[in-house]
Amino acid sequence: MKIDGAAYRTIWPAEDGRSVSIIDQTRLPHDFAVVSLTTLDEAAHAIRAMLVRGAPLIGATAAYGMALAMRADAGDAALERAHATLLATRPTAINLRWALDRVRAKLAPLPPAARAEAALIEADLIADEDVAINQAIGEHGAALIRAAAAEKGPDEPVNVLTHCNAGWLATVDWGTALAPIYVAFEEGIRLHVWVDETRPRNQGASLTAWELNHHGVPHTVVADNVGGHLMQHGMVDLCIVGTDRTTAGGDVCNKIGTYLKALAAHDNGVPFYVALPSPTIDWGIEDGVRDIPIEQRDGREVSEMTGRTADGRVETVRITPDGSPVANYAFDVTPARLVTGLITERGLCPASRAGLLTLFPEQR
Amino acid sequence: MKIDGAAYRTIWPAEDGRSVSIIDQTRLPHDFAVVSLTTLDEAAHAIRAMLVRGAPLIGATAAYGMALAMRADAGDAALERAHATLLATRPTAINLRWALDRVRAKLAPLPPAARAEAALIEADLIADEDVAINQAIGEHGAALIRAAAAEKGPDEPVNVLTHCNAGWLATVDWGTALAPIYVAFEEGIRLHVWVDETRPRNQGASLTAWELNHHGVPHTVVADNVGGHLMQHGMVDLCIVGTDRTTAGGDVCNKIGTYLKALAAHDNGVPFYVALPSPTIDWGIEDGVRDIPIEQRDGREVSEMTGRTADGRVETVRITPDGSPVANYAFDVTPARLVTGLITERGLCPASRAGLLTLFPEQR
Repeated sequence: MKIDGAAYRTIWPAEDGRSVSIIDQTRLPHDFAVVSLTTLDEAAHAIRAMLVRGAPLIGATAAYGMALAMRADAGDAALERAHATLLATRPTAINLRWALDRVRAKLAPLPPAARAEAALIEADLIADEDVAINQAIGEHGAALIRAAAAEKGPDEPVNVLTHCNAGWLATVDWGTALAPIYVAFEEGIRLHVWVDETRPRNQGASLTAWELNHHGVPHTVVADNVGGHLMQHGMVDLCIVGTDRTTAGGDVCNKIGTYLKALAAHDNGVPFYVALPSPTIDWGIEDGVRDIPIEQRDGREVSEMTGRTADGRVETVRITPDGSPVANYAFDVTPARLVTGLITERGLCPASRAGLLTLFPEQR
Repeated sequence: MKIDGAAYRTIWPAEDGRSVSIIDQTRLPHDFAVVSLTTLDEAAHAIRAMLVRGAPLIGATAAYGMALAMRADAGDAALERAHATLLATRPTAINLRWALDRVRAKLAPLPPAARAEAALIEADLIADEDVAINQAIGEHGAALIRAAAAEKGPDEPVNVLTHCNAGWLATVDWGTALAPIYVAFEEGIRLHVWVDETRPRNQGASLTAWELNHHGVPHTVVADNVGGHLMQHGMVDLCIVGTDRTTAGGDVCNKIGTYLKALAAHDNGVPFYVALPSPTIDWGIEDGVRDIPIEQRDGREVSEMTGRTADGRVETVRITPDGSPVANYAFDVTPARLVTGLITERGLCPASRAGLLTLFPEQR
């Protein structure tokens, strides 16, 4: 999508394949900085330290990380080491493993001399496929926004609430939850997005707001606590969120707090949709609350906050008292019963095994 | 309660009645600063700018503000002006009006020369009554924690989740939601408090954590998004929150986000209690969602965050992108159907008109 009028993806390789460029998302919204990755370790660090985040972009970065690793050493041991190193960076993102397994399966049968080139081609393919998937999600999801618009007066915008950042910054382009919003916006449908701040990492306030703002989509940032009140008072027409992992039963593991918004939507009859590329479906798990391990991250994400001072310095400040412990659960699981529907690249379906199988019959 | 081993109230008059001391709560948890109020305008500013906050403390501060006003001018016009000025500071807190009406009713029949002294006496009474009310709330609520402890193993703490700050800092002493916790803690019951950060003003992370820490009560600060996950996984035994205003039907208007936690408690069978001094009951309103106007506060509470830098400076940083609008709804309403029970100074009751009337039969 666009930054200052220029089209970008979130990750792109250099012509010669010796480096891969990413946007350092930890510096948004205050600095727009492009970082060049040249080694396996730099790619692993970029994922672990969340310079890149969002399940699809993590997958693509891991794939390019394999390509960078192969440039340094394309032997069998190095191939395994690259796979293991990248896999260890984030335990929850299901398509991290998916992307790594796919690249490894492509490279393993090849002679080492051919692997770097093949890895780069495969990573490019994964990136291009992600863009195509997200465009399709956008088209299918835009139908929901179009339908909501048809029920409102011509001067009333459709109000969509979203949590965290499942925008183009979380993918290679377009986004997942925001793809329907971008497609509807491009169609000229009047809409307005409620952007959950999304503590503790503030991906809503810092990333979703930033990308909507750069694209010109009307939006308002609210604290995570606000969504229930908005839905009680008819100020939300539908919710669309992303997911890091969806079970075969339709349970949705997404950024912590998603479950609370789904409860509020359910309590107020507001449709709650989850947009997902099919690689994030974990067909091996049915009950997400029971079976998905929840990543706990560094407590400083809770106790500290980074922002820009009035005179333009970026500072990190402590917001909790000395001596008060913090806990940082990064995700929660929204049970399928609270999800109105799933938006996939193949279309919409109920959040259930039966629903998913209508779109993905090959998983029977 | 205690700060560095010394007992404090949150507000106390000077011996000569010429000033009233408060703790500047906007500077917590980083600075402990006592501010002296000497005029009506200073008292009004202290409420409006939230140097003092919490319904009971707002009421007490308003009462002392009337006393300060009477020292400067005790005429009838000044009495009305003081009432109106203080009433306009915060629209939601029901016992702001209650305290102001009470002081005005006491003063109006008196000759102006007697009003300053009488106002101070009345304000002292309001403060002392608040302390007695909160101690009673603490005793009644501690029974719930005791019962939860009896169901757990001897080495398992009772986990209580609370939202915002309804601790002693929100009252004259003891607190409302935290009073049962302090009473149970003093009894030696093992407990642990999950402290919601409570965006956008962070009263949980900055005030509740600070006061629990100073009193030695085990606690952990979490983002507001986390409570649903904790309840899904059996990590919360009960929730206790405060309220700024409770309707005659048992609906609870409290800090924004309370409703989301009540939904999660309901979804997971976790008891959800609301502690309240009876002056916060608004007997004239039944349906809180429909009839309680929700205060919208300055957007900078959302877009900016104040904390302490690594080298000890207190800095305010902007956390949203330039150009992204924000909205700041300060309260929400939790419908009575989601409230397990109300904890009042007269005991426990169901969150309903019938329940409240068993404790307050004089309201029939």
